[in-house]
Amino acid sequence: MALINRLDSRDPGFKSALSKLLAFEATEDESIDRAAAGILADVRARGDAALVEYTQRFDRMPGVSAEALEIPKADWHAALAALPAAQRNALEAAADRVRGYHERQRVETWTYTEPDGTMLGQQVTPLDRVGLYVPGGKAAYPSSVLMNAIPAKVAGVQDLIMVTPTPDGVRNPIVLAAAAIGGVDRVFAIGGAQAVGALAYGTATVPAVDKIVGPGNAYVAAAKRRVFGVVGIDMIAGPSEILVICDGKTPADWIAMDLFSQAEHDELAQSILLCPDAAFIEEVQAAIERLLPTMPRADILRVSLANRGALIQVRSLEEACQIANDIAPEHLEISTEQPEKWTAQIRHAGAIFMGRFSSEALGDYCAGPNHVLPTSRTARFSSPLGVYDFQKRSSLIQVSHQGAQQLGRIAAELALGEGLQAHAASAQYRIDKP
Amino acid sequence: MALINRLDSRDPGFKSALSKLLAFEATEDESIDRAAAGILADVRARGDAALVEYTQRFDRMPGVSAEALEIPKADWHAALAALPAAQRNALEAAADRVRGYHERQRVETWTYTEPDGTMLGQQVTPLDRVGLYVPGGKAAYPSSVLMNAIPAKVAGVQDLIMVTPTPDGVRNPIVLAAAAIGGVDRVFAIGGAQAVGALAYGTATVPAVDKIVGPGNAYVAAAKRRVFGVVGIDMIAGPSEILVICDGKTPADWIAMDLFSQAEHDELAQSILLCPDAAFIEEVQAAIERLLPTMPRADILRVSLANRGALIQVRSLEEACQIANDIAPEHLEISTEQPEKWTAQIRHAGAIFMGRFSSEALGDYCAGPNHVLPTSRTARFSSPLGVYDFQKRSSLIQVSHQGAQQLGRIAAELALGEGLQAHAASAQYRIDKP
Repeated sequence: MALINRLDSRDPGFKSALSKLLAFEATEDESIDRAAAGILADVRARGDAALVEYTQRFDRMPGVSAEALEIPKADWHAALAALPAAQRNALEAAADRVRGYHERQRVETWTYTEPDGTMLGQQVTPLDRVGLYVPGGKAAYPSSVLMNAIPAKVAGVQDLIMVTPTPDGVRNPIVLAAAAIGGVDRVFAIGGAQAVGALAYGTATVPAVDKIVGPGNAYVAAAKRRVFGVVGIDMIAGPSEILVICDGKTPADWIAMDLFSQAEHDELAQSILLCPDAAFIEEVQAAIERLLPTMPRADILRVSLANRGALIQVRSLEEACQIANDIAPEHLEISTEQPEKWTAQIRHAGAIFMGRFSSEALGDYCAGPNHVLPTSRTARFSSPLGVYDFQKRSSLIQVSHQGAQQLGRIAAELALGEGLQAHAASAQYRIDKP
Repeated sequence: MALINRLDSRDPGFKSALSKLLAFEATEDESIDRAAAGILADVRARGDAALVEYTQRFDRMPGVSAEALEIPKADWHAALAALPAAQRNALEAAADRVRGYHERQRVETWTYTEPDGTMLGQQVTPLDRVGLYVPGGKAAYPSSVLMNAIPAKVAGVQDLIMVTPTPDGVRNPIVLAAAAIGGVDRVFAIGGAQAVGALAYGTATVPAVDKIVGPGNAYVAAAKRRVFGVVGIDMIAGPSEILVICDGKTPADWIAMDLFSQAEHDELAQSILLCPDAAFIEEVQAAIERLLPTMPRADILRVSLANRGALIQVRSLEEACQIANDIAPEHLEISTEQPEKWTAQIRHAGAIFMGRFSSEALGDYCAGPNHVLPTSRTARFSSPLGVYDFQKRSSLIQVSHQGAQQLGRIAAELALGEGLQAHAASAQYRIDKP
C-alpha cells in the first residue's frame, strides 16, 4: 500500500478518483440506534433510577447514588489549582483569546420605526440552559470544553451543565480544570445515551436543558439525533479533514506536519494537499517518509494517509480554489503569498488558515476562532460553532393604529385568497369604520 | 363537549391541566418513515427514471417526461400577469415589506487585526443553491412562497429551486405568481419524498441543492429528516399556536377573532388567552359563541378550540408573562397598554405582536417579519426563518510571523497535554529557532 495517494488534476480519471477518496458515509448502525432509543425511553420514564442503573453498569461505578453523580465545584477548582503552571497559563491564555474573538459574534436586539409609528425588529435572547457533552477516555480534550463553553457563556446562557463519563470513577483533572476556566455552572459524571436523555428530559438530579452540544461516540450521536426537537442540538461531526493549498514555497516539513496534525486524530481523518509544483510535491512526500517514523502516533498516521490522504498536483492555484469549493473542507490552509487573494475565491470552508504561519494547530487551540467546525462537506450550508448558536430571536411587531389601516387591507386581500376568513376578519377589525 | 377549555392559575391542579393541554407529540409513523426511505434510496440510485415514475403514480400524471417536470418561467409570469390587480398589488406590497425587513438581517464579513499583525474574523457567504418545497392542495399558500424565497434571495442565494406537486397536472396560479414575485429561479412540478430526494441527491433534470426549506406533509418531513447532513434543512414544523395576553381592555370580538385566526388552520392548532379580568374572559367566551357559527371554517374551529384551546384566568400580567415563557409560544400577542413593558419580560417566543392593533394576521402576511416560526416550544432554542438561515460563515485566521511565536507556544503546550504531538510540532515549526 502506498504511503499516501497521488493524484493529478490533468488525468482524465481525476474527478472520479477524487470523489472516491472523499466518499465517506457514516454507517448508521440500526442496533446502536435501537439501543439509544431504549435508553432514552427508560431515562424519560424512570428518571434518576434509570440514570443511576446505566451509569453503574456502563461506567462500572457500583453503588453510586444519584446525588454522587454531581461533581462539586470545589473539586474542579482543586483540579485547576493542582495543574502545572505552564498548562494552567496556556489554558487561561487560550480561554482569553477565544472569549475575545467570540465577543465580536454577539448579536443585539434591533428595532426600527416606520413613519406611521409601526415598530419592527428582533429581540435577541440567550438560551436559558445548555448541556455540554464531553467524552471520556482518549477523546477527552480540555480545548473542546473551552470551545463549547465559552460561546455559550458569551451569549449569556445562565446555566451551563457539563456531563462527562468517569469510567471506574476516574476523573480527568484537565477537563475539570477547563470547566472551571470556561465558566461551566455544574458538572455531572454521566455519559452515553443516558446522559443525553437526562439532559433532554430532566431527572430529579439533572435539570432539563434547552440545547445539547459537544461531541460523543455513536450512541451519543444517535441519542442526540433522537432528542432533536425536544431540545436543540449542534452538528453531528464526521471525521476531521484538512485541505492545504500551497504554492510550493512553504518549507516541505511544515506542510508534511500540518497534514500529520489532522491525520493523527484517527484513522478516518483526511489530509489533502493541492499544489501546482510537482517538485514540491516530491519534497513533501519525502518529508512524510522521513518524519512519519518519528511520530508517536505513526500507526494511526499510516492508516489515515494511505486510505484517505492525498498529494494532488493541480494546474494552478485558481484550479486549487475551485477544487476546494467542491470539497468544502472543514479546515483549509492557504499556504501562499497574498493568501487574501485566494481567500476571496473560497465560498465553502469551515475555517480558512491564511499564510505560511497560520498552521491549523494554532486555530485548534488558541488563535480565537472556534475549533468546532462543519465536516463532511456541510460547510456548504453550515458555520463554525459560535455565540449565534446560543442566542435566539423573537420577531417584534408593534403596528400603529395608522399602520393597521394599510396593512389590514393587504393582509385581508391575501388571507381571502388563501381561504382563511378568520385571518381576514382579524385584520379588518383593526380598520377604522367609515 | 365544552366550546373551549377554561382554566384558572389559582386552581391547585392548574399546572398539570396546562401541561395536559399543551402536550403534543408528533406521532412518528414507522411505515411513513420506511416508505420515505425507500423512495429516497430509489431516487438516489435511479435519478430521473425513479422521479418520473413516482410523479406519474402519486400525482396521477401518466406519460409525463422528465423534461416536462420543469414549469417554464414564462408560465409563472403569465400566471402573474393574469392575477386580479388587487391580489397582485397585495402580493407585491407584502413582498416589498418582507424584503425591507429581511435586508436588515444580512450579516457581513468582519475582521480585526491585532497589534502583532495577526488578522482574525469571519467571511460570510450565501449558500450556492437552495430548494424550496411548496405543498400542493389546500396548504398551498402563496404567502409561504414569499416568506421562504425572499430571505434566501436577500442572502444572495444564486439558484433558488422551487418544487411543488401538481396532482392531475393542475397548477396553482397564485403560487406560481408568488414564485415570480419572490425571485425564484426554477420551478419543478414534483412533490413528496421523491422531490426531497431529487433536491438532495440531484438527478439529470433537477440540480442538487445545499439546503431544503419549506413545509410539507408527513412523507416530506420524514424525507427531510433523513437527508439532513447531506443537505441542510429548516425546522420540522408542528401545529401552529397563538398565545394572547390581554389586559381586558381590547374589544372582546377582536380577541375572539385572533384566537379563531390560529384555530382555523387545522384541528391541531392551539389558541390560548391569558387574562387577569374574569369579566373580560366571559365577554370573549360570549363573542366566540356568537361569532363561531358565522365562520366558513366553523367545523375546524369547533374541534380545535374544544380540544386544544383555552381561556385562562391569571393573577396578573406578570404571571401571564411567566406562563408565556413556560409555553414558549410560536405567536404571542400582548394586547395591553405599554406592551414594551411586558415584552421585556418575554424570553421565549417566535414572534411578539405588541399592542391592540398588532393582530397576528398582519404578521402572517405583510408586516415584514417572517411567518415561518418555531413551534412546539422550540422557541426556547430556535428563531424565525431568516436571512441568517441562508448565509454561512468561514473563520478567518491569518497569523503573523510575530504572532506565531506566542500562539505556537500556547498551542504546543496544550497539544502535548492532549497527546497530539503532530499538532505540537506543527505549531513549533513556526517558532523562530534561537
